[in-house]
Amino acid sequence: MPRTIDWVDDRIEVVDQTVLPSVRVLALGTLDELVSAIRLLVVRGAPALGVAGALGVALAARGPGASEPELLAGAERLAQARPTAANLAWGVRQALAAWPHGPDAVLAAALRIRDEDIRSCRSIGAHGADLLRSLLPGRAALRLHTHCNAGALACVEWGTALGVVRSLHAAGGVDYVVVGETRPLLQGARITALELAEAGIRHRVVVDGAGPSIVAHGLVDAVLVGADRIAANGDVANKIGTYPLALAAARAGVPFLVAAPRSTVDLATPDGAAIVIEDRDADEVLVHQGRRVTPLGSTAWNPAFDVTPADLVTAVVTEDGIWRP
Amino acid sequence: MPRTIDWVDDRIEVVDQTVLPSVRVLALGTLDELVSAIRLLVVRGAPALGVAGALGVALAARGPGASEPELLAGAERLAQARPTAANLAWGVRQALAAWPHGPDAVLAAALRIRDEDIRSCRSIGAHGADLLRSLLPGRAALRLHTHCNAGALACVEWGTALGVVRSLHAAGGVDYVVVGETRPLLQGARITALELAEAGIRHRVVVDGAGPSIVAHGLVDAVLVGADRIAANGDVANKIGTYPLALAAARAGVPFLVAAPRSTVDLATPDGAAIVIEDRDADEVLVHQGRRVTPLGSTAWNPAFDVTPADLVTAVVTEDGIWRP
Repeated sequence: MPRTIDWVDDRIEVVDQTVLPSVRVLALGTLDELVSAIRLLVVRGAPALGVAGALGVALAARGPGASEPELLAGAERLAQARPTAANLAWGVRQALAAWPHGPDAVLAAALRIRDEDIRSCRSIGAHGADLLRSLLPGRAALRLHTHCNAGALACVEWGTALGVVRSLHAAGGVDYVVVGETRPLLQGARITALELAEAGIRHRVVVDGAGPSIVAHGLVDAVLVGADRIAANGDVANKIGTYPLALAAARAGVPFLVAAPRSTVDLATPDGAAIVIEDRDADEVLVHQGRRVTPLGSTAWNPAFDVTPADLVTAVVTEDGIWRP
Repeated sequence: MPRTIDWVDDRIEVVDQTVLPSVRVLALGTLDELVSAIRLLVVRGAPALGVAGALGVALAARGPGASEPELLAGAERLAQARPTAANLAWGVRQALAAWPHGPDAVLAAALRIRDEDIRSCRSIGAHGADLLRSLLPGRAALRLHTHCNAGALACVEWGTALGVVRSLHAAGGVDYVVVGETRPLLQGARITALELAEAGIRHRVVVDGAGPSIVAHGLVDAVLVGADRIAANGDVANKIGTYPLALAAARAGVPFLVAAPRSTVDLATPDGAAIVIEDRDADEVLVHQGRRVTPLGSTAWNPAFDVTPADLVTAVVTEDGIWRP
């Protein structure tokens, strides 16, 4: 599998996430192409969006005759392409900060963010694996539950929640992983399952409604997810369907871990109530593989994320270790 | 819409639930056809399965040269076609009890069950509407959340959980209904949405992972579901994805009501742990509209039901009023 997102020949290359498990690499040469790729979830995953934000500003800054007002307007459009994702806006800001030093400095800053993402995923993986071993001593191989995709394909490589799984697996510490399919766009069934299959890790896909009772039945030792934004008080916005797993884990006394780079923590957002939840197109819910399944008189709500209150989160694992609100 | 299940010209006529929202009526002339229709969910819904069990025994009893051993073996096969559904085995038993009086008595018993189902749904609807009005006084029109289909199309007509919605709606008491799509087979999106659209009741379909946070955000006043089996202690087996709604309702202080005919209560099952949960074909999860979305190295778990512990259930409403464990 190529890197999820990278800078190649003055363009942004991304693995098109909408056609996985088929693998197709797209080269994006303009800011507009990138914004639309982000909106369509061709590029997705909180850490990858951080890198995309930074590389997007580099792309715009290096464009022929880029002016500052144009760049700032483009950066704002890019940051708002997915309003819930803290990392996207963070990546945009980091790259923009280098603009006074010229376009090459912006690119250098963006490439540093790419390289830091690679290092920080390895570090999150190691910290998370250590934490799980200390929370669940005496179990040789763990049974884990994850949701959506917080894997290599949500980052540049390795992954956050799946980075923890990979780090544990490298030491023989994984029995199996249960994966919520993650409707409506099936990132669990299409993307996480692909990563686990390629890594040779045993796994089972389940419908999202099944996760909580699988936790209740004692079939997993821990739940492990990524995050799109973490508020200052520790409330966690993540893919819709995360909150029910946290409720079930709390009732079952099973650890519920969030793995994310430090840049996902947004201290300017006091709590979950202040997080803007992206509401996506109803057709993502109503149309399956091109076929509308609901009657014409019906419509849908399609919130992309939910908020898990801090009291249901056992720990937030970042590249620096456990983060506390 | 024709009756969901009925006895017409010596055959069982059913609305084929697998092609809804398209409407197709199938006539089943043999026990084998009925058993396979039940396994494939052509006939589904706890109360409809009770009627199907009884009519199936009538079909077998009235077959040319039916012997008692043959009839008993057929009845057992029918009762086990969906092991979690209490009503199916109950309907089989009720009809078999009339066998000493001959095949016509079996048919008469089965037709009584059909007619009782119609009456009991109306009664469940009225009791449930009264209960909601007393639990939520001062709200003119309620915002309700349901899952799967416990409607007219799960019964002979009217419905259980949707029967309550219909009874409330008849008095102008429904603002809107949120419907979980109910993966893997989308009974919420295909069937409940159809019933609500036909009844002119405002509704929104949501992915199953979204229900709990919709409850948490105060967007519904009560959660209302059916049941496939209720244990003696009040634990409720219902379609997978029910338990997370109950967890969310309990945390939010929102009433969680179960509406079901008295025949769903199985006093021989002490608690939820004793309920056999049907595990269905992995392809129901992995294949969407004929297209496999997961990598070939992946498989699935596909439990059809989950168990909601009695402490999360505000009330079980039956045709006799509120049932208490």
